[in-house]
Amino acid sequence: MADATPNSEMSNLTVETNPGEDFVDPWNVHSSSATGVDYDKLIKRFGSQKVDEALVQRIEKVTGKPAHHLLRRGIFFSQRDMTMILDLYEKQQPFFLYTGRGPSSEAMHLGHLIPFIFTKWLQETFDVPLVVQLTDDEKFLWKDLSIEETNRLAHENAKDIIALGFDVNKTFIFSDYEYIGSCKEFYMNMCRIQKLVTFNQVKGIFGFDDSTCIGKISFPAIQAAPSFSSSFPLIFNGRANVHCLIPCAIDQDPYFRMTRDVAPRLGLPKPALLHSTFFPALQGAQSKMSASDPNSSIFLTDTDKQIKNKVNKYAFSGGGATVEEHKQKGGNCDVDVSYQYLTFFLDDDERLAQIRKDYTSGELLTGFLKKELIEILTKIVGDHRQRRAQVTDDIVKQFMTPRKLNFQY
Amino acid sequence: MADATPNSEMSNLTVETNPGEDFVDPWNVHSSSATGVDYDKLIKRFGSQKVDEALVQRIEKVTGKPAHHLLRRGIFFSQRDMTMILDLYEKQQPFFLYTGRGPSSEAMHLGHLIPFIFTKWLQETFDVPLVVQLTDDEKFLWKDLSIEETNRLAHENAKDIIALGFDVNKTFIFSDYEYIGSCKEFYMNMCRIQKLVTFNQVKGIFGFDDSTCIGKISFPAIQAAPSFSSSFPLIFNGRANVHCLIPCAIDQDPYFRMTRDVAPRLGLPKPALLHSTFFPALQGAQSKMSASDPNSSIFLTDTDKQIKNKVNKYAFSGGGATVEEHKQKGGNCDVDVSYQYLTFFLDDDERLAQIRKDYTSGELLTGFLKKELIEILTKIVGDHRQRRAQVTDDIVKQFMTPRKLNFQY
Repeated sequence: MADATPNSEMSNLTVETNPGEDFVDPWNVHSSSATGVDYDKLIKRFGSQKVDEALVQRIEKVTGKPAHHLLRRGIFFSQRDMTMILDLYEKQQPFFLYTGRGPSSEAMHLGHLIPFIFTKWLQETFDVPLVVQLTDDEKFLWKDLSIEETNRLAHENAKDIIALGFDVNKTFIFSDYEYIGSCKEFYMNMCRIQKLVTFNQVKGIFGFDDSTCIGKISFPAIQAAPSFSSSFPLIFNGRANVHCLIPCAIDQDPYFRMTRDVAPRLGLPKPALLHSTFFPALQGAQSKMSASDPNSSIFLTDTDKQIKNKVNKYAFSGGGATVEEHKQKGGNCDVDVSYQYLTFFLDDDERLAQIRKDYTSGELLTGFLKKELIEILTKIVGDHRQRRAQVTDDIVKQFMTPRKLNFQY
Repeated sequence: MADATPNSEMSNLTVETNPGEDFVDPWNVHSSSATGVDYDKLIKRFGSQKVDEALVQRIEKVTGKPAHHLLRRGIFFSQRDMTMILDLYEKQQPFFLYTGRGPSSEAMHLGHLIPFIFTKWLQETFDVPLVVQLTDDEKFLWKDLSIEETNRLAHENAKDIIALGFDVNKTFIFSDYEYIGSCKEFYMNMCRIQKLVTFNQVKGIFGFDDSTCIGKISFPAIQAAPSFSSSFPLIFNGRANVHCLIPCAIDQDPYFRMTRDVAPRLGLPKPALLHSTFFPALQGAQSKMSASDPNSSIFLTDTDKQIKNKVNKYAFSGGGATVEEHKQKGGNCDVDVSYQYLTFFLDDDERLAQIRKDYTSGELLTGFLKKELIEILTKIVGDHRQRRAQVTDDIVKQFMTPRKLNFQY
């Protein structure tokens, strides 16, 4: 008995939040700390593994390419079974990527881009197929939106995702309504999962109760189903055992804890995961950005002027209250939102290190960081605006048509 | 306030069973009485209406045809909103028929035929489209059967249904797997229903508890969805307001109580219903027949010899223990299974009345009833066997292909 190593993931699908601890589930993230969620504690509670230096080095070694800065900087900080994925890759065994988006608003914000930017890097680096789930059904169930509106938003959001430059020959983007209504194998996998998960379990994992509608109760199976290659018979030629890697924000982990619990009972491989931290709101790191508060985030639809104004007006400063105090005590990068945003979007490591050093010492003022950030974001959003304008309905249709991708299975 | 007429259907989705009362839900039927379920009490508890003489006469009047014996003899004994359906018919407004079958076994028995025999009469009499749902997903969730097997059984059962002589130009038969996986409008209606029904409600209506799997919990929406014409865009040309009439056994009513509760909140018409009594087991009327006990029923696959043996050996007799006793006291038609079966399958009213009279008086012995029944069943099953042999996979495919039917909408 002394040797028994409890599998914290399997034995603890339900992750209890104790008083004072950060609260993280797919719909709410709360932290009482100014530096935001304590991610090390979250790894322990969720039973995942840290993305450590050794793993980053191994990724660089097996791919022969430098790791993405989102990986190097601990933004993708947590993982499940990445070692297995790298083992597969070394043996030239196939795997595929799966990520998603809940289309609840027309304008996506910078935080929404992070998993997709990183996913694109993963796809290019490992040369693997990608499936992107747009959960229009979820948003209908959770929000005061019609089916038609959530489906329309799915197509609008697809344009933003496509504008990041995904390869149409290697990427399948789908709306749940459209894909479930066109692929019985997907629906069959939904049923297989739904047969193995009880109300007790989803109550524990997702906090449902007796007044929850039956649509929400069964939804987790819909987010789980794309983890299995048999849900995409055209892409994987009917193969059910192609491994899956899911890059996502850590708040989505409950879905995939459930998926990983179910997978072996279905005789299917557990999906591997790479979890990101949350992209902070302009006002600070206590919570995720909110699409419903236009001043909490930079939207991909913001004008240059709006970007400038929002950063200048709302980006929480870790600097001193006066120039004198700042020069004397220095700035605090751990709470400064402009600095945090630079860690997400400034890919030059040396320059970022210099900024950190000079801001911490008090040499650089908050105004400098904001100016630097405004420049970078203006370019990112401006480039995105241009590329998105070129994404026609026809291109969206190509990405969203179930089809064979340019891989052999 | 004194005028308030409580709508027992709406205010009482959950029908409590008190001690000593018959228990009826979609999975279990128990009665402690030798004459079986007390259907008058069930009508009260479920809040439906009796199919009375006036209704039968009105049906004959508006259709200009004699009522089917299953209707005349009180086998379809209960209804919801049939008056509304007849009003529509008189005004030449369209409606459609919806019934179904859970494909849990290859061999359907006589009891399974009843709703289909009656539905065929309704279709021919009113000249309306018919949709038949084969809930292969339900049977996967409830039984120890694979998805592939339940889907195969759906196709096998479709052959039996088709063999009854439904018109392919007016009838769409579908497997849930296949149709959900090919029609987003159906899945959208599932979601609409699932958003409006809570766990609390299905717990009350269907007796689910916290250990119920999430597939069962959300399934009622799948049986509800075909009640709405917008679930069949090809048949109804996108019209969402075509009224629906559901002939089914009374144990299916919980699904449609729920559907009728949801319909007005979706701005859709409530389905009307015609409920049948249960076809008794050979051993007596205390329970429904069981597909898992081969001796409890006559199967459509039984040989002439099996039919003869089963009726002679197992059909519960309401006659006296000895010929003398029988001649003295007479037989009891209310518990005699052979007589009960004749009410289902002998369409000659005069002859049935004569048999009842002569059996009750003791003039006819049980052996006569059995002989009469064996003759009738041998012919029904034999004819069915012949017609079923002619139902090719190709014909099944025609019936199960989503398509326009021969009606204008």
